[in-house]
Amino acid sequence: MNNKRLIAVIGGGQCSEEEARLAEEVGRELARRGAVLVCGGLGGVMEAACRGASAAGGLTIGILPGDGPKDANPYVQIPIVTGMGYARNVVVVKSAGAAIAIGGSYGTLSEIGHALQNGIPVIGLNTWALSKNGKQDSSIILAQDPVDAVNKALSPGDTG
Amino acid sequence: MNNKRLIAVIGGGQCSEEEARLAEEVGRELARRGAVLVCGGLGGVMEAACRGASAAGGLTIGILPGDGPKDANPYVQIPIVTGMGYARNVVVVKSAGAAIAIGGSYGTLSEIGHALQNGIPVIGLNTWALSKNGKQDSSIILAQDPVDAVNKALSPGDTG
Amino acid sequence: MNNKRLIAVIGGGQCSEEEARLAEEVGRELARRGAVLVCGGLGGVMEAACRGASAAGGLTIGILPGDGPKDANPYVQIPIVTGMGYARNVVVVKSAGAAIAIGGSYGTLSEIGHALQNGIPVIGLNTWALSKNGKQDSSIILAQDPVDAVNKALSPGDTG
Amino acid sequence: MNNKRLIAVIGGGQCSEEEARLAEEVGRELARRGAVLVCGGLGGVMEAACRGASAAGGLTIGILPGDGPKDANPYVQIPIVTGMGYARNVVVVKSAGAAIAIGGSYGTLSEIGHALQNGIPVIGLNTWALSKNGKQDSSIILAQDPVDAVNKALSPGDTG
Repeated sequence: MNNKRLIAVIGGGQCSEEEARLAEEVGRELARRGAVLVCGGLGGVMEAACRGASAAGGLTIGILPGDGPKDANPYVQIPIVTGMGYARNVVVVKSAGAAIAIGGSYGTLSEIGHALQNGIPVIGLNTWALSKNGKQDSSIILAQDPVDAVNKALSPGDTG
Repeated sequence: MNNKRLIAVIGGGQCSEEEARLAEEVGRELARRGAVLVCGGLGGVMEAACRGASAAGGLTIGILPGDGPKDANPYVQIPIVTGMGYARNVVVVKSAGAAIAIGGSYGTLSEIGHALQNGIPVIGLNTWALSKNGKQDSSIILAQDPVDAVNKALSPGDTG
Repeated sequence: MNNKRLIAVIGGGQCSEEEARLAEEVGRELARRGAVLVCGGLGGVMEAACRGASAAGGLTIGILPGDGPKDANPYVQIPIVTGMGYARNVVVVKSAGAAIAIGGSYGTLSEIGHALQNGIPVIGLNTWALSKNGKQDSSIILAQDPVDAVNKALSPGDTG
Repeated sequence: MNNKRLIAVIGGGQCSEEEARLAEEVGRELARRGAVLVCGGLGGVMEAACRGASAAGGLTIGILPGDGPKDANPYVQIPIVTGMGYARNVVVVKSAGAAIAIGGSYGTLSEIGHALQNGIPVIGLNTWALSKNGKQDSSIILAQDPVDAVNKALSPGDTG
């Protein structure tokens, strides 16, 4: 498989209803477009995205922090057990052609940092905004809505 | 997915013809039985097992040590990119319900250690034998051939 | 040793002269106060901080991403070799009682995320500023200068 | 520091009295020779080795599997917190110029595998013996006693 078709959805293990709605729609759209979803495998944004992808017949992979598959949300089809805690965040993004960030936990922030450090495009929906010395950093590609986010994740070169 | 259906095949990135033959047959049998194959994603035993599984219509996952998917053998369908070098060995075995060890590189030895440390059954085909203070250790379950190895991996409780 | 006396300095492997000056002074002040410096062990901010700490007689630990100690800057006294690439970022911050962030590479951003996710105080000198939905996030404790940063890192409870 | 002076002591978190006696003497001898001890930081062999090294005025580093320094044995002077579980085993051996294995838990076996895979000499005291296809593997350098083990760890090239 071409990794460009494997898209990470990153976001908090707990999330607002609005974030869950966005994540579920992102998951559904990824599946419709034939992409494979990779995420951290837990609840919140991750669960909502997996639920959406599964409902639309897509494949879901969960890179789990704990020592067994039992923490995986019920929509994870392929649980990868790392036992590495949050160090697994880097695996979630490195495995993907692009990452869609929804909402903003600190774990998501670490994943955004790892993705950008590795040259992996990050598309943002209601997520962190970054600035440095009073100047905004524009590395996170802003999306209008879930369909726009998936479009940008699947062809990050066309985002201008 | 129940992790009991996800079986790790561990073995060297370079291997003998006999080891490749065993690995390919193990991969084929895993696919026939509906199991998913997880491995380190590189050449040698890993490639032969993925080739066998793919030929029989099975799903293959490669947990890669490097920084991108390009090192994956051509039969890896889902490349997971860890960037963690040999620390990824622990992820290969922890993700699986059982591990089938073929041949004997030192990387395989580390994976056998991690599997046994985590209570994951190890089935051996032409692999390491362990002893301590002159007494043999019998934790590695010996298999007669690839079909026997897959039988034992899919129902490790019945191995007596 | 109490981990509260082990302070992480995080920052880019390449940095401006001003960032190097800040990092060196932070390292020197940490050593003067009897704290141990932990960092990623490479160049830029990490090297400047280690140089300052070493000059003032302090102990320096480098958590290295590569496969051997040869990438360590010359002021790392204890090189820890992880072979885990950027996944080592999480180890740098988890080992510390607090982290001082200088400048703003994306690796530093991932470390800030990991630190905050783990409840480890982050003190910032010319580093990232975070906001979400137009609202500033104030989890990074701002410092005026290197001495102030070290004060805040060694007694993060007194920062209000 | 030259990594050749940083020696890993690997062994079970629980151990026999004889193993503890060997480990403590190894730790003491390492400190007498000016070497730094690195280990997994927990109990059993690791604690006995750290106790010996500390009593003789040596420096001890513990690479911990958990999320904080509280699991460290009381003789660990520098706790490195990985939060990576047993994946930290690879860091213990990669950081060292040589590894001394005492006794034989499965975690120790994984560390022996990682060390040999990385070309790091392993010196054995009452530890695993390896064979393959009925032929003994002689990569583990056998030591007669703790002083001999430390001699061999500090000059592995002279072991013939």
